[in-house]
Amino acid sequence: MVEIIAKATLNAHQPVAKQKEQQEAIEHIDEVQNEIDRLNEQASEEILKVEQKYNKLRQPFFQKRSELIAKIPNFWVTTFVNHPQVSALLGEEDEEALHYLTRVEVTEFEDIKSGYRIDFYFDENMYFENKVLSKEIHLNESGDPTSKSTEIKWKPGKDLTSRSSQTPSKAGKKRQHEDPESFFTWFTDHSDSGADELGEVIKDDIWPNPLQYYLVPDMEDEEGEDEEEDEEGLDDIDEEGEDDGEEEEDDVCNPLI
Amino acid sequence: MVEIIAKATLNAHQPVAKQKEQQEAIEHIDEVQNEIDRLNEQASEEILKVEQKYNKLRQPFFQKRSELIAKIPNFWVTTFVNHPQVSALLGEEDEEALHYLTRVEVTEFEDIKSGYRIDFYFDENMYFENKVLSKEIHLNESGDPTSKSTEIKWKPGKDLTSRSSQTPSKAGKKRQHEDPESFFTWFTDHSDSGADELGEVIKDDIWPNPLQYYLVPDMEDEEGEDEEEDEEGLDDIDEEGEDDGEEEEDDVCNPLI
Repeated sequence: MVEIIAKATLNAHQPVAKQKEQQEAIEHIDEVQNEIDRLNEQASEEILKVEQKYNKLRQPFFQKRSELIAKIPNFWVTTFVNHPQVSALLGEEDEEALHYLTRVEVTEFEDIKSGYRIDFYFDENMYFENKVLSKEIHLNESGDPTSKSTEIKWKPGKDLTSRSSQTPSKAGKKRQHEDPESFFTWFTDHSDSGADELGEVIKDDIWPNPLQYYLVPDMEDEEGEDEEEDEEGLDDIDEEGEDDGEEEEDDVCNPLI
Repeated sequence: MVEIIAKATLNAHQPVAKQKEQQEAIEHIDEVQNEIDRLNEQASEEILKVEQKYNKLRQPFFQKRSELIAKIPNFWVTTFVNHPQVSALLGEEDEEALHYLTRVEVTEFEDIKSGYRIDFYFDENMYFENKVLSKEIHLNESGDPTSKSTEIKWKPGKDLTSRSSQTPSKAGKKRQHEDPESFFTWFTDHSDSGADELGEVIKDDIWPNPLQYYLVPDMEDEEGEDEEEDEEGLDDIDEEGEDDGEEEEDDVCNPLI
């Protein structure tokens, strides 16, 4: 850019010596700017190394946390049901299938910027053969995501991702969802339109601290959101416990019953 | 939170031993989560140190850049006029006063998070007595900014911040601005409604690379923004040079004339 400008500047109505001095100053500024840019790149690389180091240091704690979580029945399905954005994706049968989800693992790729993988470990269940369902989100140089994932081996008649067309109006369904898509379409949807929203919610919001969602449903969409959250959350849970006490399916989403 | 939940869990309709095991698991998860949070804090601190280190390393280059910029008449006023957001704040007389601006310095406070200072160095001029006008933006713990700045010692009848009331319709004014406020009100406006937008534009957008605005006006708000920017920018400058060649004031905002 500087060279192009250099030519243009020669047309300026200024004394030639003055012109030359200013042109040289601009070129020197450009050189100094390149040094500054180089330092900025070095800073980014060092920050990346710090992040990588702490990703490694956090690993044994994530491992320990997973082992402890495995001792709590329905930890993950409860956590997902309590999370406002994930909950919106869950059909009734999705929830049933997610009862068998025992372990979730989020792994950022070594260089962090290039993407991450989420692994879902399932117990033997009536829906699919897989023990693990994984999705990898790869970010290319410009940050656009592409993804690939495990093919789900559905048991006969159990494919939840084509459920809405097979059984469009299942009798006795307690909840009606506007979106008939299954949570499990996340494993088959690789449309690169925008970022992988569910992937990012799991990676950036749930994974850093799943216990907060397991323990207390997020009250954001409900009234009184700015009051003392913990107590309110518990009050709410108590109320739910009373209101819904006779509906057997609600024990899934409430750790207090 | 865990203790409150612990009591609540005692009400659960589960075998007592099972209840206790799960309760202990939740408490252990909470402990492990605290370790993870502690690592997160350590990571943030280390990243801050890297940023501080590079702030120091960049300093001599910023110093050198400032010296080179001082050799180029009207560098800063040109840069501001070429910047779409700053330009919108400039009245005609602001521009005249900014001709005397020879040096701009942005200094982040040592701990970065707590704020920054911007110093404007002026040559002797007809508008005010000050050689330096500074504004400091302090961020408190919750990130809300408060600010303080040099009191401008205006020369008689030259207070640009009360200009619009003093001379509401100055004859011969070439440009009419919708907003009658002066750029210099930035130094007197300490309303804490939201962040200091101009301060952030200077700190985060102009200061990292002012040359790009000095050389090529930002074309974002004009047509064809996604085409080859450099060439387009230059074409545009050439056109401006031809169109405005006879308006004497425009030599300020065009480094190519």
